[in-house]
Amino acid sequence: MVITNGIAPLTSAPSDIISPLLPPPPPSTTTPISTPSSLPSAVVKIEEPLPYVSLKTGLCYDVRMRYHAKIVTNAYDYTDPHPEDPRRVYRIYKALAEAGLVDMKGASGAGHIGSKLMQHVPAREATKEEVTLVHELKHWDFVERTATMTQNELVEETDNGDSVYFNNDSWFCAKLSCGGVIDTCKAVVRGDVKNAIAVVRPPGHHAEPYKPAGFCMFNNVAVASRVILKEFPDQVKKILILDWDIHHGNGTQRAFYNDPNVLYISLHRYDNGKFYPGGTFGNYDKVGEGAGEGFNVNIPWPCGGMGDGDYIYAFQKTVMPIAEEFDPDLVILSSGFDAAPGDELGECFVSPAAYGHMTHMLKSLAHGKLAVVLEGGYNLDSIATSALGVTKVLIGDAPMPLTNVYARPEAVQTVEKVSRTLARFWKCMKIGHMIHDLPGAPPVERLHDIIRRYQASQLFAHFSMTKLPIFRDRISRSFEDQVLCTPGFQSAKTVVVIVHDPPDVWTEPDPVTGQISLHETFVMDAEIKYIQWAHQKGYGVVDINAPAVFTGQEDEGYNVQAALQDLCLYVWDNYLDLSDARNFVFVGVGEACGGHVYLLGHREVRERVRASIAFAGSKTLFPIVPIMDEFITDWYYKNSLVLTSSNHPMWDQPNGSKNPRKKYGNVQRTEYETMNELLIGKYSEVIAFAEEDIEESSSEEDHEGPDRKRLKSDRTTNDEDWVDGVTPASAPAVL
Amino acid sequence: MVITNGIAPLTSAPSDIISPLLPPPPPSTTTPISTPSSLPSAVVKIEEPLPYVSLKTGLCYDVRMRYHAKIVTNAYDYTDPHPEDPRRVYRIYKALAEAGLVDMKGASGAGHIGSKLMQHVPAREATKEEVTLVHELKHWDFVERTATMTQNELVEETDNGDSVYFNNDSWFCAKLSCGGVIDTCKAVVRGDVKNAIAVVRPPGHHAEPYKPAGFCMFNNVAVASRVILKEFPDQVKKILILDWDIHHGNGTQRAFYNDPNVLYISLHRYDNGKFYPGGTFGNYDKVGEGAGEGFNVNIPWPCGGMGDGDYIYAFQKTVMPIAEEFDPDLVILSSGFDAAPGDELGECFVSPAAYGHMTHMLKSLAHGKLAVVLEGGYNLDSIATSALGVTKVLIGDAPMPLTNVYARPEAVQTVEKVSRTLARFWKCMKIGHMIHDLPGAPPVERLHDIIRRYQASQLFAHFSMTKLPIFRDRISRSFEDQVLCTPGFQSAKTVVVIVHDPPDVWTEPDPVTGQISLHETFVMDAEIKYIQWAHQKGYGVVDINAPAVFTGQEDEGYNVQAALQDLCLYVWDNYLDLSDARNFVFVGVGEACGGHVYLLGHREVRERVRASIAFAGSKTLFPIVPIMDEFITDWYYKNSLVLTSSNHPMWDQPNGSKNPRKKYGNVQRTEYETMNELLIGKYSEVIAFAEEDIEESSSEEDHEGPDRKRLKSDRTTNDEDWVDGVTPASAPAVL
Repeated sequence: MVITNGIAPLTSAPSDIISPLLPPPPPSTTTPISTPSSLPSAVVKIEEPLPYVSLKTGLCYDVRMRYHAKIVTNAYDYTDPHPEDPRRVYRIYKALAEAGLVDMKGASGAGHIGSKLMQHVPAREATKEEVTLVHELKHWDFVERTATMTQNELVEETDNGDSVYFNNDSWFCAKLSCGGVIDTCKAVVRGDVKNAIAVVRPPGHHAEPYKPAGFCMFNNVAVASRVILKEFPDQVKKILILDWDIHHGNGTQRAFYNDPNVLYISLHRYDNGKFYPGGTFGNYDKVGEGAGEGFNVNIPWPCGGMGDGDYIYAFQKTVMPIAEEFDPDLVILSSGFDAAPGDELGECFVSPAAYGHMTHMLKSLAHGKLAVVLEGGYNLDSIATSALGVTKVLIGDAPMPLTNVYARPEAVQTVEKVSRTLARFWKCMKIGHMIHDLPGAPPVERLHDIIRRYQASQLFAHFSMTKLPIFRDRISRSFEDQVLCTPGFQSAKTVVVIVHDPPDVWTEPDPVTGQISLHETFVMDAEIKYIQWAHQKGYGVVDINAPAVFTGQEDEGYNVQAALQDLCLYVWDNYLDLSDARNFVFVGVGEACGGHVYLLGHREVRERVRASIAFAGSKTLFPIVPIMDEFITDWYYKNSLVLTSSNHPMWDQPNGSKNPRKKYGNVQRTEYETMNELLIGKYSEVIAFAEEDIEESSSEEDHEGPDRKRLKSDRTTNDEDWVDGVTPASAPAVL
Repeated sequence: MVITNGIAPLTSAPSDIISPLLPPPPPSTTTPISTPSSLPSAVVKIEEPLPYVSLKTGLCYDVRMRYHAKIVTNAYDYTDPHPEDPRRVYRIYKALAEAGLVDMKGASGAGHIGSKLMQHVPAREATKEEVTLVHELKHWDFVERTATMTQNELVEETDNGDSVYFNNDSWFCAKLSCGGVIDTCKAVVRGDVKNAIAVVRPPGHHAEPYKPAGFCMFNNVAVASRVILKEFPDQVKKILILDWDIHHGNGTQRAFYNDPNVLYISLHRYDNGKFYPGGTFGNYDKVGEGAGEGFNVNIPWPCGGMGDGDYIYAFQKTVMPIAEEFDPDLVILSSGFDAAPGDELGECFVSPAAYGHMTHMLKSLAHGKLAVVLEGGYNLDSIATSALGVTKVLIGDAPMPLTNVYARPEAVQTVEKVSRTLARFWKCMKIGHMIHDLPGAPPVERLHDIIRRYQASQLFAHFSMTKLPIFRDRISRSFEDQVLCTPGFQSAKTVVVIVHDPPDVWTEPDPVTGQISLHETFVMDAEIKYIQWAHQKGYGVVDINAPAVFTGQEDEGYNVQAALQDLCLYVWDNYLDLSDARNFVFVGVGEACGGHVYLLGHREVRERVRASIAFAGSKTLFPIVPIMDEFITDWYYKNSLVLTSSNHPMWDQPNGSKNPRKKYGNVQRTEYETMNELLIGKYSEVIAFAEEDIEESSSEEDHEGPDRKRLKSDRTTNDEDWVDGVTPASAPAVL
C-alpha cells in the first residue's frame, strides 16, 4: 500500500464480526510513500477485488412490517386510507426490483432479496435493552401492551392526540423496524456492506423518549445511533444524522439535544411553527444545549413549494461544510420522501435527481459509511421513485442531472439565518459573520439614526425644514427626529404629506468579516425629488420617516406599524386637520404606506385630501378600512394611485383574481422593480395626478359642479352626501 | 423501467460505436411512472448487471510517452532533471498498480493494462485534422519538423523562451498524448467506460493555438473537446473543462474564449499576474468574450499555500453551483497535481483526500461522464498519491475524510470577487449580489460622506470642533471636510493629532439582494474617547479622517496613501509647526498610521513630538523613513507605541524574526482582535503613555537632565545632539 489507506472499511475490529466477504485487513496507518518492498505483494494482489468497491449496498426489507395497519372503524377508512400505509415499503421494494436492483420475488417474502449489487440485511426484533437506550421503560411497556389490547382498547387508549394508530401487530412491527435499522447500521459500520438502505415502517423520527408520535413508535434512528455508539466505541465516536423528511424530527432532536457526539441536521417545513410537529422546537435557534450546544442544526423552511435548488443550496452552503467540519464516523439518513412532488402533506418538489445528488454528497463523508433509513413519505409513486434515485447513487451510479438549480429567496434567507446562528459553533460558518457580539459601549450608533440626522440637515439646508414636535409619550421615543416640516406649512393652501421608509442602502460587505466599506456603500434617497416638486409649487411639506425598529416580536402587540399609525393620526389631529390647507396630497413610500392609508380610513378626510399616492413597490398592499366613513372605499379607489413593482408577488398568483379589490385602491403594475426606479420613473405621472386633483379641487370650490373627470363614470351617487366642514371628534389632540 | 432513465450511458447513438461490452440500450426517454407491463421484463433482467455501475474506469497509459525528454546538454541536467520528467506517467501507473487497481506488468508496456476495475484505453497518434481543430497549421508543421531536426537545431530552434523542450521523439509523443486524450474522452462519451483517467505527457493546457508553451505542445484537452463536439453533436452539446493545475491554462482558455458551449473553469495561483504563465489573462475579470462571455471562470489565488479548505470552499461556493447551472454533457478535468504538497513549483497543500472530494463532486455532473487528463505536477511522489486519490474515487471509492476544511481569508476574498464578477452571467451567483449597476442619479450619496458629516456635527456639538481649511489643490478634493480642529488649538501647549481611518460599520445585509437594513447596521467610533480625553485635559485636537477612496488602480501613481501623506505634511507645515504647542502627541488608527509616520520621517519633529501611538490592528505596519534626521529611527523606537492585533499576520510568520525591526517602532502584540477592541481595551495604557511623555517633557524643560525613564537604558549617546528651536526649512507653507 502506497498511500494512507483511509478508505478501507473498518474491518479490523472488533475481530469477531469480520465478514467472510472481506479480504484481510489492510495496514491501518500511513505507510511511507514508495516502499519498494510492498511491490511484489501488490502485483500478486491484482486479481483481488478492492475492498470498498467490491462491497454491495445493503437492503433491509421484511414483508412482515406490513402487518402494522390502521384498524378500519368506518367506511371512510376504506376509500381514504391512512397515509402511513402498509404498501409504502412494498412499493419501494417493487421500484428497486423493476429497476433490476433486486429480485421481484423478494417483495413477497418468499424469494431471494438482493442481487449482485445489493445484499440483504435481515430485520430482527429490537430488544428491550436496545430500545430503552432512548425510550423510557413506560413507553416500551405501553407499546408492548398494545399487542394484547382489544379492538376497542386499541382505538380508544392509543389515541394520544398525536397522530398514531395501533393494531395488535404494531408492537411486533415497531420492534422489527427498529431492529432492522440497528442491524443495517451495524452492517455498514462493520463493512459487511459499503452503505445501505433500510426500507422499514413504522417510521421513527417523531417518537419521543416518552411517547409515540406522528405515526412513529420507536425512534429507529435514535436507537440505532445509541446502539452503535455503545457497541463500536472505537470505530464510531461521532454520528451525523441528516433528516430530510419534510417534518422536523422532534424525537431525534430530543434524544441527542445535549450530546456532542451526534450531530443532528434537519431540513423541514416550519411555517413559523405551524407545520407538524408544530411549536418552536424545530426553529433554527434550537441549537442544542449543554455539551450538545451547536450540534443541532435546524433548517426550517418558512413555507411549502421548496425544490431541488433550495435543498442543493442548503447542502452546499451549510450542510456539507458543517458535516465536513464535524467529520463523522457514520452518517445515518432519516430519509422521509415527503418533500417529493406529489406528497400531499409536504407540498414540496424535491426530485429523485436531487435526492440522488444529496445522497452523493453525503457519500463523501465518513469513508462513504452511509445508512439510509425510511421515515415518512406518503405518495406511493413519489416515495418509490425517490427511493430508487437514492439507491442508485448508493450502489455507485452518478446522480441524474438536476433540472432546477436555483434557490428561492425564502431558502436563501433561511439558510442565511441558520449560518449566522451557527457561526458561534462552527468555524466554517463564521465566514461573513465574524463579528457578532457588538459591544454595547456608547460609541455605537445605529446607521439609521445617522442617516436620518443627515437627511434632516439636508432638508434644513435646502428647504428650511425643521422638526415637528411630537409630544405623545407612547410614540415619541421611536419617532424622535422623524417628522420634519417646511416653515409655515400650517398656512399653505396645499400640503404634501410624505410618509416613507428609510432610504435604500446598497453595499458589498467584506466576505470574511461582514464589515462594509463606507466608500462602497451608497444611500439612495429619491423621495427628495417629491419634496423639491412641492417646494417649487409653494406647497407646504410634512415629511414622516418610518423607522423599521422592531424591539420585540411583531406579535407582541404594539409594533412599529401600529406606532406609525398612531403617529399619522397624531400628526393629522394636531397639525394637519387644524391647518388652513384645503388640499392634502399623501405620498407613501414602502411599508410606510400603511400609516397614511390607515389615517385615511380612520378620520374624515374626503373633503380635503385630494390624492393618495402609494409607492408600494413589492411591499405589502394596505386596504382602506372604512371606520369613520362608509363611502371611503369608493372614494379611495377613485383618488388613489397604488404603484407596485412588476415583480410584486400579487401578480404571480396563478389562481388569484387578476386585480385586487377596490379597498386596496387603484393598484397598478409598473415596469419597475426597485423602489427607487419606481420613484424616479413614475415622477411625472405622479405629480400630474396630484396636480390635476389639486386644480380640480380649486375649480370645484368655485362652481360646485362637475365630478372629477378621470373617474367620473365610476362615481357612485353617494358621493353627493359628502359632509362639509366637520372636524372629527376623535382622540384628544394631545394626550 | 419505472423512472426516467437518465443515468444510463449514451449507448444508443451513433450505432456503429456501441461497445460489445454493453447490454442493449435501455429505453431512452421517460416512461410513465408504474407501467405494470414493464414488470415481467424487469424480473427477467434481474441477473443482468446495471449498465453504469458495471462499467469500469478507463485508463489511458502508454509507455512510449516516456520517449519525449529533454536533451542533456550539460552535467547539470543529470543532477537536476527537468521537472516535466518522463518518469511522471510511470510513477502514477506504478501507484495505481501498487494499490491493486492495475497490473504492474502493464507499466513496462509488456503486460496487461487494466483489471476488474479499470479498462485500458489505448493511446494512438492524433491526426492532423484533429489537432488543427484547435491549432494553426504552422504550429502543427513546426512540431512535425522537430522530429527530423539535428540536436543542435533542437536546442536552438525550439527555444521560444516559453519553457518548452524537444527531442526527435517529442513529435510522436505529443501526438500520442493528444490522441490518447481524445480516445479517453470518446470512451467516456460512448459509455465504454463509466469515467476515465488519461495518464499522459507531454501536458497540454499551456499550448496556445499558435505555439507550444509551458512544457506543452498540443493542447490535448482542447483538441479532445473540439473532436467530441464535432463527432458527437447529439450527445455532447456542452463541455465543462475544470482545470485545477496550479498554473492557469492559458491555451485552453484561449481556445474557447468566445465559445458558449465550453465552460472553462480554472483554479490557479495568480499572484497578481506574477505566477506562470503571467500577465492578466488568468485574472477573475477574464470572463470570455462575445458569445462566450460568462463561460470562462478564473479563480485566481493571490498567493501560495492554498490547501484543502480553500479548494473545497471554492468548489462548494462557486464551481459546483455554476457547473450545475451549466449542466454539461461531459466533464473533462485538466488535472495537474502541482497544487499537491511537495510540489516546488506550486507551493500549495492540496491533499489526495481533497483531490478525491473534488473528483467526487465532479462525478455528480453529466451522468458521471468525467474524463481526467494529466497536466502538470512535478513532485513524483506527490503526483502518484494525488492521482491515486482521484482514481480511487473514479472507480467508486468514497473519498478519504478531509483533515482541513477551513478556507483562508485569501480564498474567501478571491471566491467572493469571482462570484460578484460572475453574477452578471450566472443566476446562481446572483445571490447576495442582485444590485449591481447603481444609478448615477443625484440622490445617490456615498455612506462615507454621510457619516463624516455626521461625525463633524457631533464633534462640533460636543467639542466645538470646526473644519481646518485645506487650500492645497491636489489634495483638497479628497479631503474636504476631513480635517477638524478644536478652537484655538494653535495656542494650546499640547496638541493631540489624530489621524484615523473611517469608523467601522457592521451589518448583515439581506442575503438575497445585498441590501442592508439601517436598523441592523452599526457605526462604531471609538476614537471619540481619545478626543474626549484630550478635551478634558485642555489639549488642542486636530482630527484627520483618512478616506479610503481609490479612484484608480493603486499602482497608477498618486494614491490615497500618498494623498494622506501630503495632507499630513500640509497640516504640519501650515498649522502644527507654526503653532505655540510644545508637545504633540500623534495617534494613528488603521491604515491612516501611514500618514503620521510618514510625517515623522519627513520633518524635524523630535523636539516637539512627545509620543506617536499607532493603532495598527491587523493592518499594514509603516516603517519610519529617516529623510530629515538620521537619528529619527532610534527616537521613533523609544517614543512610539505600535499596537497590533493578536491576529496580525506578522505574528504568524514561521521563520521570520520574532520582532519587527526598530524602524517599525515599538511594536506590541495585544490580546485584541478588532480595532475597536484595541481602541477601548488599550485606552488607559495609551493615555498614560502619552501623558508620561508630556509631563516629562515639561520637567525636562526645567532641569535639562534625566533621560526618559521608560527606555533610559536603550538611549544612544546621539540623543544629546538634539538641536533645539530650528524650524525646518522644508516645503513652502502654502503652495
